[in-house]
Amino acid sequence: MDSLHLDQHISQQYNADLEKLRTALLEMGGLVEDQLADATRAIETADGELAEKVLKTEKKVDKFEIDIDKECTTILARRQPAASDLRLVLMVTKAIRDLERMGDEAAKIAKMALALNDDGESPRGYVELRHLAAQVGKLVNVALDAFARFDVYAAIKVVRDDKDIDIEYRSSLRELITYMMEDPRSIKRVMNIMWALRSLERIGDHARNIAEHVIYLVHGMDVRHISPSEIEKQLEKQR
Amino acid sequence: MDSLHLDQHISQQYNADLEKLRTALLEMGGLVEDQLADATRAIETADGELAEKVLKTEKKVDKFEIDIDKECTTILARRQPAASDLRLVLMVTKAIRDLERMGDEAAKIAKMALALNDDGESPRGYVELRHLAAQVGKLVNVALDAFARFDVYAAIKVVRDDKDIDIEYRSSLRELITYMMEDPRSIKRVMNIMWALRSLERIGDHARNIAEHVIYLVHGMDVRHISPSEIEKQLEKQR
Repeated sequence: MDSLHLDQHISQQYNADLEKLRTALLEMGGLVEDQLADATRAIETADGELAEKVLKTEKKVDKFEIDIDKECTTILARRQPAASDLRLVLMVTKAIRDLERMGDEAAKIAKMALALNDDGESPRGYVELRHLAAQVGKLVNVALDAFARFDVYAAIKVVRDDKDIDIEYRSSLRELITYMMEDPRSIKRVMNIMWALRSLERIGDHARNIAEHVIYLVHGMDVRHISPSEIEKQLEKQR
Repeated sequence: MDSLHLDQHISQQYNADLEKLRTALLEMGGLVEDQLADATRAIETADGELAEKVLKTEKKVDKFEIDIDKECTTILARRQPAASDLRLVLMVTKAIRDLERMGDEAAKIAKMALALNDDGESPRGYVELRHLAAQVGKLVNVALDAFARFDVYAAIKVVRDDKDIDIEYRSSLRELITYMMEDPRSIKRVMNIMWALRSLERIGDHARNIAEHVIYLVHGMDVRHISPSEIEKQLEKQR
């Protein structure tokens, strides 16, 4: 834990409310991680049932978002938090939106798995997909971990690694365009893989957002639109 | 104005702060509307300079987001708003993220305009693009207007029209896949149009989010993941 410690409040209930928020966010995060893993496996193994499971889980993720958001509003209205408590509540209202979007994108990947069942499997792109999915899954895990431990350095690592994922993604796209040009009959099927790659890249962006929220939470510093090395420089100055 | 009226506060300054938030959000929205119009025109007229202008405007939009977000945090800490004021502030923190994303997507469209300059213009897809861009531009305008006038019925119209845009988008994609299969040498260029269409569809989603925030602001009702007719039913019940 870097420079953040949540204030201890005279009201036990207030402490419990804040702790509950944190736990709920991590629980929601765990659900989204499962969705992502299942959706990718559904494409690879052409498993329609697993894809349907991902679609069902989306409803649970949506419910988490609405419930946690309500809880945040209640805390703001009743407790009127200040300083790091206020940042925590605001951070949670933002992070749950990112998680909900990640769940959305995982559902899109699951739909692509179903489309591949209908249109016929893609002759190409599985290697690229598996590779990117593994990287993105790791990124999501580190981002949630950074939140769980208020770990700014893990958060900066996420911002940095997301850049590699974007490079990887663009190179996969180029590969797939080449495949399509070589075998135009495969276009429709390869497009399904392409949309899935796109969703993975978006999930990476949302993981980076969560990491940026963690940095804001711990340091009160808004680091969106700033490069990782610039973030580190600014953190050094704060010491 | 439906059932919302912002409370009048003893503090003139507080009233002024809330009004400033509203104005800033609308100003940011105007900037994003310009970006969207310019980006689409940059593709249609292969205008590289206009595309560069969109990319430059993105920085301004980003700055708006950071400044407004800070202002919201300050108001929450100092004024400890309740009821509809609290909803307004929370709504603004969410809507600016949507606007920033819309600006991001407009920038992606501008990049596609630049790519079309490099890869050669696409033989197809301009009609679809122009059509979808007009629909999405209108949607964004109505969403911002719904916020400016706290107009729930305009907001519901946005939620509904976004569904039409999704249908339109999917039918355009099918067209473009057919073009690519007919003329595989055009794949790379048509893909640029496809990504631009995708960005337009996302911008539509964000406009719908803003509309949903307006409904939440006015009625305190979370309408995400609910159909437009279900929203209307629930509003009827509230009467």
